Amino acid sequence: MERWGKVAIVGVGLIGGSVGLALRSRGLATEVFGIGRSSRSLDRAEQCGAIDRGTTDLAIGVAMADVVVVCTPVDAIAEDVRRVADLTPDEVLVTDAGSTKRRIVEAIEGHPRASSVYVGAHPLAGSERRGVESATSDLFEGRVCLLTPTARTPDKPKQRARAFWKSLGSRVLEMSPAEHDEVLAYTSHLPHAVAAALAGCIPADWLPLAAGAYRDSTRVAGADPALWTAIFRENRGPLLKALGSFQDRAAAFKYALMTDDESAIFAWWEEAKRRRDRFESFNKPAAS
Amino acid sequence: MERWGKVAIVGVGLIGGSVGLALRSRGLATEVFGIGRSSRSLDRAEQCGAIDRGTTDLAIGVAMADVVVVCTPVDAIAEDVRRVADLTPDEVLVTDAGSTKRRIVEAIEGHPRASSVYVGAHPLAGSERRGVESATSDLFEGRVCLLTPTARTPDKPKQRARAFWKSLGSRVLEMSPAEHDEVLAYTSHLPHAVAAALAGCIPADWLPLAAGAYRDSTRVAGADPALWTAIFRENRGPLLKALGSFQDRAAAFKYALMTDDESAIFAWWEEAKRRRDRFESFNKPAAS
Repeated sequence: MERWGKVAIVGVGLIGGSVGLALRSRGLATEVFGIGRSSRSLDRAEQCGAIDRGTTDLAIGVAMADVVVVCTPVDAIAEDVRRVADLTPDEVLVTDAGSTKRRIVEAIEGHPRASSVYVGAHPLAGSERRGVESATSDLFEGRVCLLTPTARTPDKPKQRARAFWKSLGSRVLEMSPAEHDEVLAYTSHLPHAVAAALAGCIPADWLPLAAGAYRDSTRVAGADPALWTAIFRENRGPLLKALGSFQDRAAAFKYALMTDDESAIFAWWEEAKRRRDRFESFNKPAAS
Repeated sequence: MERWGKVAIVGVGLIGGSVGLALRSRGLATEVFGIGRSSRSLDRAEQCGAIDRGTTDLAIGVAMADVVVVCTPVDAIAEDVRRVADLTPDEVLVTDAGSTKRRIVEAIEGHPRASSVYVGAHPLAGSERRGVESATSDLFEGRVCLLTPTARTPDKPKQRARAFWKSLGSRVLEMSPAEHDEVLAYTSHLPHAVAAALAGCIPADWLPLAAGAYRDSTRVAGADPALWTAIFRENRGPLLKALGSFQDRAAAFKYALMTDDESAIFAWWEEAKRRRDRFESFNKPAAS
């Protein structure tokens, strides 16, 4: 196959490493080049089999690339895509894996060259772990990947981006960058914020007595602080709105509890269970 | 061994069924008698191997019992224990598995006969599933079981309760009923309430795009509404306090996000991660 030619991955952590492993295990690229900040992390990526070769020099790494996947933190992506666009051949496809989209896409569309080769993407896969050691070749298998092209995205890179993420095993869906951010604020960013609020408010001395409910509800609070600070800041508006809905719902429960209103507490829980059961009915267990 | 003689289990669901399976698989009882509301559920318990025999008649079920374990919902336990105490031999041990303790223990201590044979217990094990079909013989294995004797609890039943729960594989710890309820409000009841608030506030149309963070954070919201309404009401005071701490922590995050205060968001997440990592360091994966 080798259908994608030379693929360059900028930022070879959990996501970037998994892109590399998926490409290499499926024989989809002639070469997978990793670009990172330290040669030590690139050595680890090579040992894991995520890349063929690595470099800390972006210009060398993306030269002659057919596809570039930018897997850096959300607050670095726009700038990285713009730099990549200036260093790559005309026919390159540049895509990313950022958890937020509106601000990134807007910043990239202000750069004519970048906006002609870039298609925003967000594979809904990951975990609270980080680093290339946690990467797996099947991370995207059967998982949704959201593409966020705009009216200004040319058709050819859009089709190639669709085919690229599909070739890694993803189910590809499209939505606008703004809609993406509104949906993800509720389905991912809010659950992360709530998990951290919960993890942070339980007295440390009582943690040895916490069991499964605490463990699962707070799992994602083990994720990297810098990564999540950047995601929250990039998606402030939609997240504040989601947080408001959540606070309203928590307050409704508190009021029902204060007034010891049995039927209100029951109805409140039942509505939550109905949604949770609905989610369960069309989702099978998989990674975060 | 058969050290416990005849054991009667009142309420043979997930917890009661697991008590039965643990007793029978370890050969700890001469007979395990199940008492339930319907003969159909008792038939299922017998088929699962959780009990030797079942009856819907409490008087028959607990007659001549050496140990009675009350595994009914929290709002039924006190009354069930009082009825059991009036129907059993002098030397019986009566214990329970309720998720709340202060109100239950207070109600039982108002009944002289019950208070002389009862020792409150709460095995920290369970799951969002229910019914004897989900019961397992190793549910209590290595898990903490909290005993809540008071100054009025005689020494002999206290020692027997300790030995009984230990024989099922539990690590037995003691605390007062009030302290139990304060701790559990934070470590279990609050995580359940938060999971339900989260599950309830996410627009249903977007559920197909929810991934691992949502799935794990809301898992326990799939639990039984009647069961949790009763637990919340039994533990209103401590749960309202825990809910207040949680709301304060969520509000602190919201304020940091509103003011786009990078270092405050980072520090807020880092504190949560520190507690989550500490929990992880002394807890191994197990059931809820």
